[in-house]
Amino acid sequence: MKEEFVQKFRELTESARRPAVITHFDPDGDAVGSALGMALYLQKKVKNKVPVLIPNTDPAFLQWLPGHDQVVFYDRDPEACARVIQASDLLILVDFNVRNRLKKMEPCVFASRIPSVLIDHHPDPDLPAILVISDTERSSTAELIYDLIMRCGDAELIDTDIAVNLFTGIMTDTGCFSYNASRPRTFEITAQLLQYPFNKDTVYRNVYDFYSEQRMRLMGYCLHQKMKVIPGCRTAYIALTRKELEDFHHEPGDTEGFVNLPFSIRGTLVTALFTEKDDHVKISFRSRGSFAVNTFASRYFSGGGHFHAAGGEYPLPLDAAVQKFTEMIQQHKDEIRD
Amino acid sequence: MKEEFVQKFRELTESARRPAVITHFDPDGDAVGSALGMALYLQKKVKNKVPVLIPNTDPAFLQWLPGHDQVVFYDRDPEACARVIQASDLLILVDFNVRNRLKKMEPCVFASRIPSVLIDHHPDPDLPAILVISDTERSSTAELIYDLIMRCGDAELIDTDIAVNLFTGIMTDTGCFSYNASRPRTFEITAQLLQYPFNKDTVYRNVYDFYSEQRMRLMGYCLHQKMKVIPGCRTAYIALTRKELEDFHHEPGDTEGFVNLPFSIRGTLVTALFTEKDDHVKISFRSRGSFAVNTFASRYFSGGGHFHAAGGEYPLPLDAAVQKFTEMIQQHKDEIRD
Repeated sequence: MKEEFVQKFRELTESARRPAVITHFDPDGDAVGSALGMALYLQKKVKNKVPVLIPNTDPAFLQWLPGHDQVVFYDRDPEACARVIQASDLLILVDFNVRNRLKKMEPCVFASRIPSVLIDHHPDPDLPAILVISDTERSSTAELIYDLIMRCGDAELIDTDIAVNLFTGIMTDTGCFSYNASRPRTFEITAQLLQYPFNKDTVYRNVYDFYSEQRMRLMGYCLHQKMKVIPGCRTAYIALTRKELEDFHHEPGDTEGFVNLPFSIRGTLVTALFTEKDDHVKISFRSRGSFAVNTFASRYFSGGGHFHAAGGEYPLPLDAAVQKFTEMIQQHKDEIRD
Repeated sequence: MKEEFVQKFRELTESARRPAVITHFDPDGDAVGSALGMALYLQKKVKNKVPVLIPNTDPAFLQWLPGHDQVVFYDRDPEACARVIQASDLLILVDFNVRNRLKKMEPCVFASRIPSVLIDHHPDPDLPAILVISDTERSSTAELIYDLIMRCGDAELIDTDIAVNLFTGIMTDTGCFSYNASRPRTFEITAQLLQYPFNKDTVYRNVYDFYSEQRMRLMGYCLHQKMKVIPGCRTAYIALTRKELEDFHHEPGDTEGFVNLPFSIRGTLVTALFTEKDDHVKISFRSRGSFAVNTFASRYFSGGGHFHAAGGEYPLPLDAAVQKFTEMIQQHKDEIRD
């Protein structure tokens, strides 16, 4: 984080009177934790409530976060969002890199021409912000915000509520320190956040032990009956029909993380999750080691993404998508190495 | 850790010529990681190989640890273990608190009358050691060993191999930082260990992505078909017959962790895992919040353990054990609170 960016951020936030914080559609723990941590920090500086705007409702396992009552959700009250933005003099955008991650809220934010600052850790930020603080080496936006607050000399403004939000952002974006957490700094910051008096075990339970019984049954069904291993390819996949999802009273987010399940089988280097939608098949890909799933996704499944995590789609029926995947993986099996 | 204990440890290890390190039966990641970390550290001081003795073979997901080739397993070669002990002038016992955790190796160790040092984090150590360094506040013995080395002024003796062993000990005894990891010090030490050049993601994969396909199928079957929720009691359990275990080609350790699966359902505060053995039913209990499973286990299931983690047994058949559990939990349901 360049010193000039820190200085610019400090100037902007010190001259702002009515800042607002905004994060992305389908917000995850880092989006909500980072946004609330930033808002609670800024309101100590401006000595007024700092609103948080989110395009759509966040999952229930985040709604206990400190300050959550000051979030305005665009999908519930677009007029209120528009009023907040019009009344603002600085927008702090956190945890996203491109405009369309705001979905329907996008015009309302960018037509306003209110100056904005972006703080993010995704690659290739492309937004009309007057200041972009982006660091892809960071585990999470929350980690970056912690260091930004420290670099601004505002250590004493951090309190337990801010610490809980930032800790939750780091914890969720690293899968509880299981990935994106190889750098010492992530653990140093976590140690510093744990100095504040909150119960880490409660945070963990609120986030990770919050599933419905049906979601756990569906996960069991996937592991027991639906996970298929492709022989000789170090690849395994799960394909779910609409009927199966309905049988388990599927709710949005229930299949989150299922694409990673086959990695628990030793030696698995490529995984895929197929879900049957109304008019197409949605596919998530993951890999370890040498195999670039973004290239694979773009070549055969009209998709793209990161080297180790990508998405794509394919025409119905589901079986055809699975067959195409199986054939293409077999063609590329020599590229799948540790 | 009292300064006098650190000094005593330093004196003992500096005057020793042929120390050996010993850990407990059914060794876990903290046992093996701590023992190897300590041995690799000591051999830099004595300038000779320092053997590690373990009562029985460790699981395959630990056998890649640096220095693992210098472990002697009592179950494979009891005479070699006896020779090592007889040739030693100091025994460093790590990660256990009572003699019988050595099982059949116990007489061989304690009849030797060779002076021993215990380093551990379990409650109520009860061993004939000339120095006991025990701290139940620590996440793991590995964490304690790291601080002991630092307090001895031996920071420069820590290398990547030692760091990998100690990191693995901390990671495994905290379930990858999901429990027993509320103290800042655990994260500070982890940050310091990550300064050494090793791949944390590879360590994670070696340990956690090392399951057989059948183990994952069995886990899915448990979640999908065998997990039962007891209405109104915030309690869920899994009961497995011998036939079911055989159908999934069950190997020792495969059901490790299954008792925790039902906690993922929000609101669950008590869990149990029943497994049918040849002549009895083995039961594991876990709880969150106010309910003491050790008291419950000792009162109804000839068992005991910790407040939140206990074990017990019951006569066959399996159904009778489950019924007893269901009845007793219903009697105690008012004690099950957050």
